[in-house]
Amino acid sequence: MATKVAIIGATGYNGLELLRILLRHPDAEIVYLGTRATDEPAISAVHPSLLKLCDMPAEPIDPETIAKRADVCFLCVPHTAAMAHVPGLLEKGLRVIDHSADYRLKDRAVYRELYKAEHTDPENLARAVYGLPEMYAGEIAEADLVANPGCYPTAVILAAWPLIAAGLAEPDFIADAKSGVTGAGKKLTETTHFPEANESVLPYKVGAHQHAPEMIQVLSEAVGGEVTVEFVPHLVPMDRGIQATLYMKPTTALKADVVAEAFRKQYTEDPFIRLRGAAFARTKDVSYTNFCDLAWTVTERHVIVSSCIDNLVKGAAGQAVENMNIMFGHERSAGLL
Amino acid sequence: MATKVAIIGATGYNGLELLRILLRHPDAEIVYLGTRATDEPAISAVHPSLLKLCDMPAEPIDPETIAKRADVCFLCVPHTAAMAHVPGLLEKGLRVIDHSADYRLKDRAVYRELYKAEHTDPENLARAVYGLPEMYAGEIAEADLVANPGCYPTAVILAAWPLIAAGLAEPDFIADAKSGVTGAGKKLTETTHFPEANESVLPYKVGAHQHAPEMIQVLSEAVGGEVTVEFVPHLVPMDRGIQATLYMKPTTALKADVVAEAFRKQYTEDPFIRLRGAAFARTKDVSYTNFCDLAWTVTERHVIVSSCIDNLVKGAAGQAVENMNIMFGHERSAGLL
Amino acid sequence: MATKVAIIGATGYNGLELLRILLRHPDAEIVYLGTRATDEPAISAVHPSLLKLCDMPAEPIDPETIAKRADVCFLCVPHTAAMAHVPGLLEKGLRVIDHSADYRLKDRAVYRELYKAEHTDPENLARAVYGLPEMYAGEIAEADLVANPGCYPTAVILAAWPLIAAGLAEPDFIADAKSGVTGAGKKLTETTHFPEANESVLPYKVGAHQHAPEMIQVLSEAVGGEVTVEFVPHLVPMDRGIQATLYMKPTTALKADVVAEAFRKQYTEDPFIRLRGAAFARTKDVSYTNFCDLAWTVTERHVIVSSCIDNLVKGAAGQAVENMNIMFGHERSAGLL
Amino acid sequence: MATKVAIIGATGYNGLELLRILLRHPDAEIVYLGTRATDEPAISAVHPSLLKLCDMPAEPIDPETIAKRADVCFLCVPHTAAMAHVPGLLEKGLRVIDHSADYRLKDRAVYRELYKAEHTDPENLARAVYGLPEMYAGEIAEADLVANPGCYPTAVILAAWPLIAAGLAEPDFIADAKSGVTGAGKKLTETTHFPEANESVLPYKVGAHQHAPEMIQVLSEAVGGEVTVEFVPHLVPMDRGIQATLYMKPTTALKADVVAEAFRKQYTEDPFIRLRGAAFARTKDVSYTNFCDLAWTVTERHVIVSSCIDNLVKGAAGQAVENMNIMFGHERSAGLL
Repeated sequence: MATKVAIIGATGYNGLELLRILLRHPDAEIVYLGTRATDEPAISAVHPSLLKLCDMPAEPIDPETIAKRADVCFLCVPHTAAMAHVPGLLEKGLRVIDHSADYRLKDRAVYRELYKAEHTDPENLARAVYGLPEMYAGEIAEADLVANPGCYPTAVILAAWPLIAAGLAEPDFIADAKSGVTGAGKKLTETTHFPEANESVLPYKVGAHQHAPEMIQVLSEAVGGEVTVEFVPHLVPMDRGIQATLYMKPTTALKADVVAEAFRKQYTEDPFIRLRGAAFARTKDVSYTNFCDLAWTVTERHVIVSSCIDNLVKGAAGQAVENMNIMFGHERSAGLL
Repeated sequence: MATKVAIIGATGYNGLELLRILLRHPDAEIVYLGTRATDEPAISAVHPSLLKLCDMPAEPIDPETIAKRADVCFLCVPHTAAMAHVPGLLEKGLRVIDHSADYRLKDRAVYRELYKAEHTDPENLARAVYGLPEMYAGEIAEADLVANPGCYPTAVILAAWPLIAAGLAEPDFIADAKSGVTGAGKKLTETTHFPEANESVLPYKVGAHQHAPEMIQVLSEAVGGEVTVEFVPHLVPMDRGIQATLYMKPTTALKADVVAEAFRKQYTEDPFIRLRGAAFARTKDVSYTNFCDLAWTVTERHVIVSSCIDNLVKGAAGQAVENMNIMFGHERSAGLL
Repeated sequence: MATKVAIIGATGYNGLELLRILLRHPDAEIVYLGTRATDEPAISAVHPSLLKLCDMPAEPIDPETIAKRADVCFLCVPHTAAMAHVPGLLEKGLRVIDHSADYRLKDRAVYRELYKAEHTDPENLARAVYGLPEMYAGEIAEADLVANPGCYPTAVILAAWPLIAAGLAEPDFIADAKSGVTGAGKKLTETTHFPEANESVLPYKVGAHQHAPEMIQVLSEAVGGEVTVEFVPHLVPMDRGIQATLYMKPTTALKADVVAEAFRKQYTEDPFIRLRGAAFARTKDVSYTNFCDLAWTVTERHVIVSSCIDNLVKGAAGQAVENMNIMFGHERSAGLL
Repeated sequence: MATKVAIIGATGYNGLELLRILLRHPDAEIVYLGTRATDEPAISAVHPSLLKLCDMPAEPIDPETIAKRADVCFLCVPHTAAMAHVPGLLEKGLRVIDHSADYRLKDRAVYRELYKAEHTDPENLARAVYGLPEMYAGEIAEADLVANPGCYPTAVILAAWPLIAAGLAEPDFIADAKSGVTGAGKKLTETTHFPEANESVLPYKVGAHQHAPEMIQVLSEAVGGEVTVEFVPHLVPMDRGIQATLYMKPTTALKADVVAEAFRKQYTEDPFIRLRGAAFARTKDVSYTNFCDLAWTVTERHVIVSSCIDNLVKGAAGQAVENMNIMFGHERSAGLL
């Protein structure tokens, strides 16, 4: 039976991608689009690429109405706005998949510092499951509230986790990431003005990006010990894609096939991990897909792992749908191949 | 008095950039263009952007003819081809600035391994001066043969050297570099075919790029001790620019102003270093200039330095002209502002 | 029942796009990949983006084998190579959809001049149906051999046909088209080398492109009279998309709503035409879709029509699948939304 | 003697380009930067690419102060803002080169309609000289007030004028132009947000762009008769460059060499016109130069002329400096090669 889907806040890039994916999902049906705006235009007026695909009007946000129609609600609203909606939706019996950072960070002090807001929903925060299927598929299946991971954390965690967990790499590494500009969202900024972003590489939030604490929390919990990450993101002139190069210190003399084996063992069941070995994996090969391509090289001093995802798919909307599939018993890759 | 300039091999991107710069240099005059091709077309037939700027024909390569007309000869031929020309040119009394790697690496075994060729001119190799003016301005002034540095080494060495030399950072660091596609040259390859390179980030030669030994040699000599570098280059979809992010371990608890002071002290006299402090320096700001922009952030574990150059200017032709200026007593920035 | 599909020549961009579309088509199954190469690698070795999606090996081309397994064969081989395969495939009872130009031009003299080859299969040429569903859906349904239209002709014909057919515009117009670089194919050329194509607009084959006679033939036949087109294509720095601006002379004083009505009437039943009216339609909105977006403005002297398609989808592989859907009785948009 | 230069409004892309050019002009000296903002930062704080090149502060705008220091004042303020400054500057004896449209259109009714403002300085409007050196070098030499041409008009007029003037082409033609995104300025808009502009071609202001009346006025005056232009601009994903394809009807049977001769005759003395004949001229070859490259093809029905300029150089700041050179008796190409 098709899962009935509500989406709140579909006017951004993430919302658009979610619509694109769900519109051709064999087991999902979009039944509701909610907007925080007072006027309620058809979503295709905001995203002309959806014309003839989805001409639904956006409706005011009312949990009761949503609950009558839908099984699950995707939230695509900004950080600090999501937590205002979640309690009401859960209360009405909806299951919620939240794209914001509001339910990712368990430590409210960290959240306060990074997002300059007091968390107003600590109870649900405690119950929320981190929606990285490679790590938490079991918990996701049972969850009412899934915190969909950030794009950078997805790319970095999937590359680092197996090697630290297997004791092959030190729990203290460097991640140098490069992202396409959709990652910065639809809001107009000087940094994302075409003549500023084009023909340029820009490092930003050096050693201070809000996704680093997310990586640290998730990895530390997963490996049962303190993990630290030095993380620097860079903006590169393309629409989509994240490439992260991780510099990890081996705990012992390593060969590439031992690394390969650790990845293989960890991701045996996971449909969206592609192990590329010594190939030079690039973002183009994962563009418009839910795959995470991992490649690695062992040098004298490091295991260097390269991780590539599409920031809007595996880094956002695609992973959200993967979570929905798990929550509602569909094939995990339904609508995503 | 104007320096009389010969150029051999001006058909590539580096040669084009050299012509552009020299054509408006107040103290230089191009008197000879040499080609290895048998036909001798006007250089503007190869580079239509030079029409009405330089319609000189390319001539066959003859050291005697060159020496009659020119004071200095720039070599823009591929690695392993340059060393066939250098002895003859020096013999005739010309001073030579070589863009290839042939006279950069002092250790012939390393050269053999990286460039798959036996070095045929060990005598001049021993005398060649590494053309990084920030480091060797004095030697360059006296040199007959200058080995113009590689693009990546220029970006990385200028960022790392002052901190290691001052004892502030360990001589063992990571450099993650991103380059525009002109860096890969004019030769057609699948990697640089537009639909492959566009909308993608590609790490390549991971831990195995031929520029790493160059960085290591130059830094080790400069600081008088062994330096090691883990270096990964990435291709990004833009024409020009290199951005390198260096992850360096501080030798002691550091503050950003101590780092600033180390850079300031080292580069007091250098016209092309711009110290950007905590700003997010980007390649766009150095595009079509000979500047190297340096920015830095001190985190709990690292000094992170970002270095930006234009790979065709400070990373190649611009630095070559800077060397010429030093060799012939012109203002160091003549023709480069 | 699923249509069983064979593909010959899937190593180019068009073949890759065809695979992407067919792999998620609900009513198609890929049963054979043929290659003209002597070695037979998995297609995912050629297109790493297909890893875990399609790891089939490519097989030698044998019509008998193909006929045993497949219902339809897509040909993605170059112009002049296709006509060597078609007779054998048809003979074995396969239906064929050919991406090349070999069966588009009915006049063999025109073909000879444009493609520098004698047509070797005049019999099938006479029977081939031009695969533009908006024009020939009925004939396509019955066809054994469909000549899939060129990318530029698709964009231009769909914009011009309704207005000429309705007698609103003169049968003599100008089409100025801009194309992304995948349109030039996978073959390495100087024109498509990244540092040459990036940051540039290049008009090419001015007044002499081989797609102009195709437009002229199809439009002339469709409106029952001689149509002439002045066509200039331009290469622009992006991966995908064709935008064509048509300058048509109205036969009488026109208003925009009369133009709208002509389009509406013509395309009532067509799922992939989107009438955008006075909006500024752009290629981004049709990217990765089979849509053709049409917008128009009536000025004092012209009806200006803008047509946007994705050159790899509606301009190639998507339209081929649309044709297959029609030929085999599937929903016309199956696998294409 | 160096010309002393004041610039008002240097914070946009045009102002930045003007600074870049003037900073290396052998016969010009920047003595004043004026800003309409209340704070007065160094211009290098606005444009970090100017660090170490120009660290002048911006000063409040006072004509008296400017006149004491400068010979000429460049205005780089928006349309409708320029005319508030011009009378005061002229009164103090300064010569003025205005980048805005305020003094280009002689017909105040047309100005009112296009720029939604009443012209407040009709007296100087009547005396202003249109700053297209190929057409008005003589008048420019004597002018106190030069209206620097728009970018699109520069590209289109230079291509059309010789053929209409020589009676070879009808005075009624089509111009299809493609522009890089710096042409849209520094103001943040949805259209110029990177993820909207990248990987897309967008026609805009179809048949309604404010530059069409400028082309019409200038061409009509130049040929002494009514000229009409159908003009459609398109935004393409690159920083710089305008390419315009003109579709002109020959008045008589033409050969390409007659066209060539008409261009040659017209532009004998003009240093920045490059006649490329049948070559496929592209914007890349004029990037960062003041050249206008013209190429042409004669087809059965049209003379098709392609015109390429850099919108920020020949289309704005470069041409302004060319005008300054003429006004102050410098070599016309001084600082521009």
